[in-house]
Amino acid sequence: MARIVDLEVLDIRFPTSRQLDGSDAMNPDPDYSAAYVVLHTDSGPDGYGFAFTIGRGNDVQAAAIRSLAPFVVGRPVPETAEALAALSAELVGDSPLRWLGPEKGVVHMAIGAVVNAAWDLAARRAGLPLWRFLAGLTPEEIVGLVDFRYLTDAITPDEALAILRKAEPTRQRRIDQLVADGYPAYTTSPGWLGYSDEKLARLARQAVQDGFDMIKLKVGGELAEDVRRMKLAREVVGDGVRIAVDANQRWDTSTAIAWMRELAPFDPYWIEEPTSPDDVLGHRTIAEALRPIRVATGEHVQNRVVFKQLLQADAIDVVQIDAARVGGVNENVAILLLAAKFGVPVCPHAGGVGLCELVQHLSMFDFVAVSGSVGGRVIEWVDHLHEHFHDPAMVVRGRYVAPNAPGFSARMYDSTLRRFRFPDGPEWTVSSP
Amino acid sequence: MARIVDLEVLDIRFPTSRQLDGSDAMNPDPDYSAAYVVLHTDSGPDGYGFAFTIGRGNDVQAAAIRSLAPFVVGRPVPETAEALAALSAELVGDSPLRWLGPEKGVVHMAIGAVVNAAWDLAARRAGLPLWRFLAGLTPEEIVGLVDFRYLTDAITPDEALAILRKAEPTRQRRIDQLVADGYPAYTTSPGWLGYSDEKLARLARQAVQDGFDMIKLKVGGELAEDVRRMKLAREVVGDGVRIAVDANQRWDTSTAIAWMRELAPFDPYWIEEPTSPDDVLGHRTIAEALRPIRVATGEHVQNRVVFKQLLQADAIDVVQIDAARVGGVNENVAILLLAAKFGVPVCPHAGGVGLCELVQHLSMFDFVAVSGSVGGRVIEWVDHLHEHFHDPAMVVRGRYVAPNAPGFSARMYDSTLRRFRFPDGPEWTVSSP
Repeated sequence: MARIVDLEVLDIRFPTSRQLDGSDAMNPDPDYSAAYVVLHTDSGPDGYGFAFTIGRGNDVQAAAIRSLAPFVVGRPVPETAEALAALSAELVGDSPLRWLGPEKGVVHMAIGAVVNAAWDLAARRAGLPLWRFLAGLTPEEIVGLVDFRYLTDAITPDEALAILRKAEPTRQRRIDQLVADGYPAYTTSPGWLGYSDEKLARLARQAVQDGFDMIKLKVGGELAEDVRRMKLAREVVGDGVRIAVDANQRWDTSTAIAWMRELAPFDPYWIEEPTSPDDVLGHRTIAEALRPIRVATGEHVQNRVVFKQLLQADAIDVVQIDAARVGGVNENVAILLLAAKFGVPVCPHAGGVGLCELVQHLSMFDFVAVSGSVGGRVIEWVDHLHEHFHDPAMVVRGRYVAPNAPGFSARMYDSTLRRFRFPDGPEWTVSSP
Repeated sequence: MARIVDLEVLDIRFPTSRQLDGSDAMNPDPDYSAAYVVLHTDSGPDGYGFAFTIGRGNDVQAAAIRSLAPFVVGRPVPETAEALAALSAELVGDSPLRWLGPEKGVVHMAIGAVVNAAWDLAARRAGLPLWRFLAGLTPEEIVGLVDFRYLTDAITPDEALAILRKAEPTRQRRIDQLVADGYPAYTTSPGWLGYSDEKLARLARQAVQDGFDMIKLKVGGELAEDVRRMKLAREVVGDGVRIAVDANQRWDTSTAIAWMRELAPFDPYWIEEPTSPDDVLGHRTIAEALRPIRVATGEHVQNRVVFKQLLQADAIDVVQIDAARVGGVNENVAILLLAAKFGVPVCPHAGGVGLCELVQHLSMFDFVAVSGSVGGRVIEWVDHLHEHFHDPAMVVRGRYVAPNAPGFSARMYDSTLRRFRFPDGPEWTVSSP
């Protein structure tokens, strides 16, 4: 029986702030970073995962992951749905670690990184890309992945089973469709707040030429500038392309409503993160005031309990799961089931480093085995930092290509790990000021 | 101008699990711990603070506090309300650290520890116990402590100012009252889940003899046992003593309602943490079903945004602030103002290690300068581990004695720090298995 023999953690940082890539109303100068974890095994492939951060504090995130070593080192490689559920439950349920959240923040993201690495490992050993590994599980096995604690007032295991059984007979058809046509994407690359008007217009034009029918702009700095940039983007892309906007939590409820009314003439598709990701009732107020403009959130939603409430309260129109914020694949399966129950489309957050690589698997699994639909669904695409991955996500003519390599696409090149290791890799010792 | 010259962090753990002190339905064997911080200055007293944890992960918490050193080392000692607000705002607003929450979990608790240590420092230098230092600020200075981002749909700065101005003319009368009579307490000491019936009955009887008119029992293990223990406690203390119960987040919404209906014949005063602290809507459902039994939560409520919603939704009847969970004094002032605005009493969580020491200051400040009332208010008291503090909290005849020593009562003895330092202090190297 193969065993996990070591948990290795690396603090990897990319100096993205030098180009203002990723700049938004709350995050002026991020250095995209990964607290990167390798589950070393005594035979066969290893497993890879990471938590995504934006620089300072990545060492704290790495320390949190390292503290989970006693739970996995020496453990038989979890190769079944049941073993993966047991690992997730053990980590999430540990009472002292739970005290540090519970189920939120640095410790929960650390659990997510380790759980995701275990899924990567299991899928590699099965020789399947994660989305197909997941989509090969029975409805019963999928329900068994989920911690229903705190969820039963919104979805019961039986209701989840019914959703999965409904999709089961037609799974293969959708697998074939994904392999043939991929999954719809939108691009945020034109819209970073630190970019000039010229760069915005050029990249927006390019996006349409590249086949995207949806782009996203960052907003929330200065209202007059947002109006100008939104007007410019609309002129460039025309009426047939959706433009989402993203305030990155900048506003209070009333500001969000007033600000978006100024942008409404340019037909924004959704407003993303208008306010605190913790504010369920605030999102409901904003959604009620702004519809038909959709309200979206999720990249900072801490766990399934907050997603549950956002759905119960009819506070959002778009569920933006993030592959590396919550407690890993298991909790994201719970969130996909909640979204399906409430009939709200899932449009994942991606970008950063490696988030596109991860989350494409979850959306494709959702399409095959849960929601059964791509209607209103689209995965974020940001064309940064993919060159560091063995199995980079690929978008062609505005669609994600279904990944075919075994695993969760989470493995970075050893050369990247050496060069960008903080603070002692050459990228930081040679070129930083 | 005095400066902070070092931020020292110590991992301090007490082996409380050996006696099952602190055992509850979610935390069977806690080792009460502190990630303890000292702000060393170049002249005059130093400042002390800590995050409270229950063992494993205290090293991660300590690493998070250590990562904040660049924000405080070299900084002039913040002695004014304005300087303390600036420190809090800088820590909470730092974009990379914010990504790790935002405003929740390990990083937010680390900010709370440092902000509290800065307040301890300022109060020591002013020669005042923290509650009097705070109660000596003007209403405008107090409003200036608060980050109103995400709060303005529930309370505006002007509304906060009005609350504080109303209480201002009569502050001295309440200061005198506190010095003369103290502040009401209740005790959890009889009620830990791991205690035998005999120990429960003995300690409950003792509590009444000691002058308490309220005790608390842990529940949520086995229903039949809870009914037996609640019945026993009611028989021992009689009808004139309030008995609160605490489920430590054990239940889903429907279980909470059903379980509490079984305990209702024994007149529980409140049900504390019936479900996830993140579940605002769940608490509302429970409160609507169970009133007149009160619903209480807060020791794990991550920040002011969740407290805001619990109040907006009329989901709780008791606000249980915790001195070391949110971002320190500044955020707790925000929560006290919210509670006053909504007219809900604040009954702090305490116990652990040092939580009684800290939170008494916040309740006394609330009484003097914010709510102006002790009606329905009571601070938790657990008689553990006070011997490790220079200025231990004291309860006499069921009431907290108003602290008189300068500071936030946060300083532990050097001998304690040496003995309980993990993993190299003699308590851990000599007596652990």
